[in-house]
Amino acid sequence: MDDTEIRIGAGEPRGPGGPPAVLLLSGGLDSTTLLAQATRAGYHVTALTFRYGQRHRHEVAAASRIAATYGATHRIVDIDLGAIGGSALTSDIEIPKDRPMESMASGIPVTYVPARNTIFLSYALAWAEVVGARDIFIGVNAIDWSGYPDCRPEFIAAFERVANLATRAGVDGVTPIRIRAPLIGMTKRDIITLGRTLGVDYATTTSCYDPDQTGAACGRCDACQLRQKGFREAELTDPAPYQHASLTPP
Amino acid sequence: MDDTEIRIGAGEPRGPGGPPAVLLLSGGLDSTTLLAQATRAGYHVTALTFRYGQRHRHEVAAASRIAATYGATHRIVDIDLGAIGGSALTSDIEIPKDRPMESMASGIPVTYVPARNTIFLSYALAWAEVVGARDIFIGVNAIDWSGYPDCRPEFIAAFERVANLATRAGVDGVTPIRIRAPLIGMTKRDIITLGRTLGVDYATTTSCYDPDQTGAACGRCDACQLRQKGFREAELTDPAPYQHASLTPP
Repeated sequence: MDDTEIRIGAGEPRGPGGPPAVLLLSGGLDSTTLLAQATRAGYHVTALTFRYGQRHRHEVAAASRIAATYGATHRIVDIDLGAIGGSALTSDIEIPKDRPMESMASGIPVTYVPARNTIFLSYALAWAEVVGARDIFIGVNAIDWSGYPDCRPEFIAAFERVANLATRAGVDGVTPIRIRAPLIGMTKRDIITLGRTLGVDYATTTSCYDPDQTGAACGRCDACQLRQKGFREAELTDPAPYQHASLTPP
Repeated sequence: MDDTEIRIGAGEPRGPGGPPAVLLLSGGLDSTTLLAQATRAGYHVTALTFRYGQRHRHEVAAASRIAATYGATHRIVDIDLGAIGGSALTSDIEIPKDRPMESMASGIPVTYVPARNTIFLSYALAWAEVVGARDIFIGVNAIDWSGYPDCRPEFIAAFERVANLATRAGVDGVTPIRIRAPLIGMTKRDIITLGRTLGVDYATTTSCYDPDQTGAACGRCDACQLRQKGFREAELTDPAPYQHASLTPP
């Protein structure tokens, strides 16, 4: 866990292009902003993107383009969460649309994927150990969190403990692994504002749970609503394509 | 974490065939004994076996047969740890043979797979949430542990905390998830002795890191040496096939 600003410590080893880090990159607004931040701070990032039986692969393609933009090493990992099911994102459960914002904060939505962030962080931990990274970046945030239990600060802290017990780091007494979630206390507005100062092009990011064949966002799922609210509050126009022009923020 | 004996609590719900549980089944001596234990205790077990770029698939086939023997639901999950590498079990690093037993206790061996148990438990957690299981069984043991950091009691305890923060259990306040590792304090001799009382057929279990095409064990890797030591100390003959008859225990 970390403050909003990402800094490399004075005593840290620096290889060509900076110290290695592993970052979970979905291709969405949050993880793209985080990648911009970590790159600006000087990390050499290995970005991991998961293909996990999503109905739509647009976010994987978007992630590849974004990783290339920031000079990150990009790894796509195929995992079969679809075989597990239990979520609207990986099975045939219908994705809710037009939910009132108030109701997002209560209860766990059907778009929750069982243990997803635990699985993602476990792979990131394996990669961190192999590439010699001590820093694992994850773009969760707990403010506009929309009810996901594995986006909470206490989850991140607990996983950091696991990371240091599970690996060579915990036995050899080398520099411990840090799970860094600098966006965790930020609203979508804060994140967008930060991203703008870093020059992030949000037209290339995808947040929608239910995009069409071209990748255009539905504008109505929880993720779209939270994103649009963020842009409205930041007093910016969302440059991403939407399926219905009338649904884009004014 | 748990005592050696597995018991279903008096107040626990019992469906047809007992309460659901998820169990990590490698097809080796430890996890097979654990499956016998959990089945005897009355759990309805979903056994997960991972294909993770092992050089040899004998253990997956053995796990399927063993799951069928105990009436468990068997799920094989393909994961691409081989793409990560960093271990003799998933890449071209040579598997050490004939190491003195004393040296196994010091340092992490090259057969360590980065973050393996963290990844396995993460998938088990996802399955537990989907099938409604509160119990996840893992056959690690820390006595003859051979230097793996993710077989230690403190790792299991830390993961249990993650499990309860990462999932619906942690938010909805339902019965918490338990990571149960009843073999953790047992020697191989203890485990074999327990398995005999449960009627486990160890001829079907496979422990070797480097079996031949027929599945016969090398008798010389760390896993074979620890297994053979266990059988010697239990004063039993290992019924598993070995490549060289002269290397089987007397």
